Amino acid sequence: MDETMTSGRHFLQIPGPTNVPERVRLAMDRSVPDHRGWEMPELTSELVRGLRQVFKTTSGRIALYPGSGTAAWEASIVNTLEPGDRVLAFSIGHFSHLYAECGRRLGMAVDEVELPWTRGVPPELVEAHLSVDRAHRYRAVLVVHNETSTGATSDVGAIRAAMDAAGHPALLLVDSVSGVASMDFRFDEWGVDVALTGAQKGLMLPPGMGILCLGPRALERSRHVTTPRYFLDWGPLLEQMETGYFPYTPATLHLLGLREALRMLLEEGLEAVFARHARLAGAVRGAVEAWGLEILCQCPAERSNTLTAVVVPPEVDADHVLRFAQTRLNLSLGTGLGRLRKRVFRIGHLGALNELEVLATLAGVELALHLSGVPLDLGSGVAAAQRLLAETLRTRAGATTPC
Amino acid sequence: MDETMTSGRHFLQIPGPTNVPERVRLAMDRSVPDHRGWEMPELTSELVRGLRQVFKTTSGRIALYPGSGTAAWEASIVNTLEPGDRVLAFSIGHFSHLYAECGRRLGMAVDEVELPWTRGVPPELVEAHLSVDRAHRYRAVLVVHNETSTGATSDVGAIRAAMDAAGHPALLLVDSVSGVASMDFRFDEWGVDVALTGAQKGLMLPPGMGILCLGPRALERSRHVTTPRYFLDWGPLLEQMETGYFPYTPATLHLLGLREALRMLLEEGLEAVFARHARLAGAVRGAVEAWGLEILCQCPAERSNTLTAVVVPPEVDADHVLRFAQTRLNLSLGTGLGRLRKRVFRIGHLGALNELEVLATLAGVELALHLSGVPLDLGSGVAAAQRLLAETLRTRAGATTPC
Repeated sequence: MDETMTSGRHFLQIPGPTNVPERVRLAMDRSVPDHRGWEMPELTSELVRGLRQVFKTTSGRIALYPGSGTAAWEASIVNTLEPGDRVLAFSIGHFSHLYAECGRRLGMAVDEVELPWTRGVPPELVEAHLSVDRAHRYRAVLVVHNETSTGATSDVGAIRAAMDAAGHPALLLVDSVSGVASMDFRFDEWGVDVALTGAQKGLMLPPGMGILCLGPRALERSRHVTTPRYFLDWGPLLEQMETGYFPYTPATLHLLGLREALRMLLEEGLEAVFARHARLAGAVRGAVEAWGLEILCQCPAERSNTLTAVVVPPEVDADHVLRFAQTRLNLSLGTGLGRLRKRVFRIGHLGALNELEVLATLAGVELALHLSGVPLDLGSGVAAAQRLLAETLRTRAGATTPC
Repeated sequence: MDETMTSGRHFLQIPGPTNVPERVRLAMDRSVPDHRGWEMPELTSELVRGLRQVFKTTSGRIALYPGSGTAAWEASIVNTLEPGDRVLAFSIGHFSHLYAECGRRLGMAVDEVELPWTRGVPPELVEAHLSVDRAHRYRAVLVVHNETSTGATSDVGAIRAAMDAAGHPALLLVDSVSGVASMDFRFDEWGVDVALTGAQKGLMLPPGMGILCLGPRALERSRHVTTPRYFLDWGPLLEQMETGYFPYTPATLHLLGLREALRMLLEEGLEAVFARHARLAGAVRGAVEAWGLEILCQCPAERSNTLTAVVVPPEVDADHVLRFAQTRLNLSLGTGLGRLRKRVFRIGHLGALNELEVLATLAGVELALHLSGVPLDLGSGVAAAQRLLAETLRTRAGATTPC
């Protein structure tokens, strides 16, 4: 079978991996550099500087692993916790559940607070759980910033405030795999201790890397933690990265791609990147509303700017919509994960993405829904999205109105 | 700074990462596929089939991780051993020492037999150590097939025979990071329980993957092992790979590159690949002898066909030779690792490589040695290599003598 089942380009609109920009691809399409050679110190240093800007931190240290978001989860746990340590986790979807499961499988005593898979973590609930823990047995709180399975975000700053209000010293470990670099993330301001992401979402790279940002409290804790670890031990990694090198062969082409991706993000301007995601997400939500379908995330303020999970009518199988889009329209959408299987599908709108790509995606979703028996007016979602985009385009055009 | 410090191409002759063939680069220079999409089952199945051929196994299962050789080490340990399990390791160089250290850091009781860093593991020593372990406390034996820091190989088949002669049931875990796909590896015939490698050596990919081949005894053991593990747990991985998918986002472009690399290896023919490596390695060794320098690996039969570690005269700093080659000749060589630092440098001759590239490398090494004050006749090593290559070229030309 060939790469494409139809002519023209593939629309990869899952919530990551995202479309890799040509500039990043070209930066990676070169000979492999010597990972102990002269190119490394300058490269590593630029990556660290750029990622610090993306995480909005001055004191955070950056750790880069060949791996995945799952490897980053494990790194966040084995470096800061001892087996048996109590951990408070909030499960608001498939990935926050798995993050808790990861902690459990690594030997931690995880109290997993199960919440509806329709919204973020309520900060007052964090405060309530921590306030009663007067012995400060919880060593860490696990939170997913942007739950990729539901499209619900949690207010990390408010969660830190809740932890502070409870006077609790637990570390705050935050998964922002599908948030960082597409949505605002304020490592320092929010008092995050460990933030983690993957390469293949807002950072616009092919999958293959786990990326962490580590605060002083997490670093201090890791110096005393005796949990068995080797590959993911960030001690030797940080020590070597300081000199520009790595304790084992890094994914060098990914590092080169990351440099280009960071340059692109900083050229566009991080605030402009976040505004673009907000704008495009608004258009997608407008389309879903025009179709009369339900957005899984119930609270408008918590709706993600990087993906939208759409609930299909009970008589429709969401996987049928997906299969139709994939086989007939060369459009990949995200499936419903875990208990959401067949009930929802997810539209990814993050990374390198513009208005026309979103409109094409919506037109495709509309067709796939229509042909799967969902009653809707063809064009209605696209038009709703266009109207929303027209407003912001008019505003953004400003003084420089085209003649 | 630009990619190249001189014009023309960079000679990456470290013992891996190796030069990525254009075909592999082009296979990876494409849009990221949907990792839950239609392309995956056929892709994964071809990779598993191809890797089984490379490992020479019919019963072995293949596990692919986004990661590195280090991640593969850790996977081989956490899936087959419990903390406190006794492990017998043989340290014949920097990497076999680190493999033992990896086991130790992960909580195993590792007995590390320290041997000279100039040869492979003597099978009779394995038998001696296992014979006295009548209680069968050793659960595993760690062996490095091709020690990348010294260029010495171990006879894995003979080691298995020694284990059998001792009547010992320990698992045989073999690192062949810089051996597999360049040198013959016979997983089934040698009775290996776990073999592991990286992507960036004989498999000719950019770094970013760890690859394992798992035998039935290792699989059986892993079903009972309770060692905390998540990212590297091969249970869920193998289960999903059976269907063509992965439990987390795999390094999809690496998978596509691996498919192309395997096709290239099988088109050339594995035995032809091994013969090419033997021929090119012979030429390198001929050059080193012509220079009057010592090859670190003392036993000719154990000299690696993928790299050669060269001992410099005591008054010369090997790192000076390297720096000269790198900055003036755009030639990367391997540094001396651990206790070999400044005493040796390593010439990598594995992966995608031909006669002229080897001769160019030798000419460059010769220049760098000459200008670092090593007394030698310029051209002597290149000529020795040419003479050796001429012999094999004459034989291989056979009936089809050029007119």
